[in-house]
Amino acid sequence: MTTRYKITLTYDGTNFAGFQRQPHQRTVESVLTKAVNKMAKDPAEPIVIYGAGRTDAGVHAFGQVVHFDLPYAISAEGVRRGLNSLLPVDALVKTVEIVPDTFHARYDTVGKRYWYRAYSNEFVAPFKRNFTGHFKFAADINRIQQAIPDLVGKHDFSTFVASGSQAHDHVREIYSAKAWALPDEQEIQFEFCGSGFLYNQVRIMVAVLMEIGQGRRAVDCIPQLLAAKNRDLARGTAPAAGLYMKKVYYEAKDLQADLIKD
Amino acid sequence: MTTRYKITLTYDGTNFAGFQRQPHQRTVESVLTKAVNKMAKDPAEPIVIYGAGRTDAGVHAFGQVVHFDLPYAISAEGVRRGLNSLLPVDALVKTVEIVPDTFHARYDTVGKRYWYRAYSNEFVAPFKRNFTGHFKFAADINRIQQAIPDLVGKHDFSTFVASGSQAHDHVREIYSAKAWALPDEQEIQFEFCGSGFLYNQVRIMVAVLMEIGQGRRAVDCIPQLLAAKNRDLARGTAPAAGLYMKKVYYEAKDLQADLIKD
Repeated sequence: MTTRYKITLTYDGTNFAGFQRQPHQRTVESVLTKAVNKMAKDPAEPIVIYGAGRTDAGVHAFGQVVHFDLPYAISAEGVRRGLNSLLPVDALVKTVEIVPDTFHARYDTVGKRYWYRAYSNEFVAPFKRNFTGHFKFAADINRIQQAIPDLVGKHDFSTFVASGSQAHDHVREIYSAKAWALPDEQEIQFEFCGSGFLYNQVRIMVAVLMEIGQGRRAVDCIPQLLAAKNRDLARGTAPAAGLYMKKVYYEAKDLQADLIKD
Repeated sequence: MTTRYKITLTYDGTNFAGFQRQPHQRTVESVLTKAVNKMAKDPAEPIVIYGAGRTDAGVHAFGQVVHFDLPYAISAEGVRRGLNSLLPVDALVKTVEIVPDTFHARYDTVGKRYWYRAYSNEFVAPFKRNFTGHFKFAADINRIQQAIPDLVGKHDFSTFVASGSQAHDHVREIYSAKAWALPDEQEIQFEFCGSGFLYNQVRIMVAVLMEIGQGRRAVDCIPQLLAAKNRDLARGTAPAAGLYMKKVYYEAKDLQADLIKD
């Protein structure tokens, strides 16, 4: 008899080589797997964890979701405190729930939400260097706001996927996409909510939008880029440091409730 | 004929072993000295830099002030861009001024301002770990606000100085001291403006104030602590990561203008 736990995890991606376990690398999956197994007294059959989605090296998370099974039942609060006592200081379990054995962190998602912080200045800012993507040139928020609605909807995002992607089907639906400026911070921030995102899709969309804002692409270029289904036309990828996995949705009603606020 | 430059510097103290040059350590003074000398084509007589004050390992700065002399005159903007091209990403020159040869970054100060961020939670927060001091127990802002005015004024701060201090005279004047809570962030923030501060003084004052807030000391304990002139009575030192050197004053009128806003 096992018990399934769903946890939400926040991490500063700066010192992780991404989420996914890789040999000889410090990844989120490896430190969390180690903590879960240590909490369970290192059972003969190691406990495996399943994440909602991978994040690249340097990418942050406020709400990564992971599930795993324990060979016994302890309280959700006990798991939260146990794991947080064992995790390194750059990863923290925010919430823990006991869920039905049918729950799957990866396959049951109905949506995901990402946040991006783009900082424009000639030089990198010391306190922002790990937490924003750095752009040398300022972008015009009005141009970005004119262009961004063209990304919303169901599209083939082949132009916006990195070559390392293992996905065969590049059709995804973006439910909401917004951008706003924080002039005092010299930042433009973006938020995207969609059915799911392809490898590097958010970072490629941000790179194109920043180029539109900088006047290096036309405001109305996105429909042509989408229609071309050709990654060579997008080229850039915004830096990992500006990207945050904000929220993963498992219930249509939670997704709808947040979309109403967008 | 030399030209004297006054620069204000911001740095993320996380990866520096403090401001002051030390053998085999990466310090702010050493990286800045290297950048200044490289910009000046490594003159036979190395250029020496003078900082307004030392900061410890892990302590941050928004407005550290430094002066140095160049053997020639280039524009302030040329110095700013030249240094920022040579400095590492965790230190940045914000402003540069050409000043009279009599200006001294350390001896001409008329006041300094420090900011402190105290985060209370059972566990360290990933995104705050290098930028706040971590406290296990929450503090009551009302108790802190009742106690903090007792620090304002001219006092012998011998109870609030670390043993490593080289200062003989422990009398300093605090012009303003305030604390406020950010409940959503689980933070209490502090700001102190004074004539100058002893070694670790701000961090020791914050440690005592947090203990007052946590109910571990009486709200009215500060006058007795000051009168005792005995460091053993204060004990704690708040973590370096929460401390920011915010501003250094050289003109009484600038200091007055900011104190009116406090």
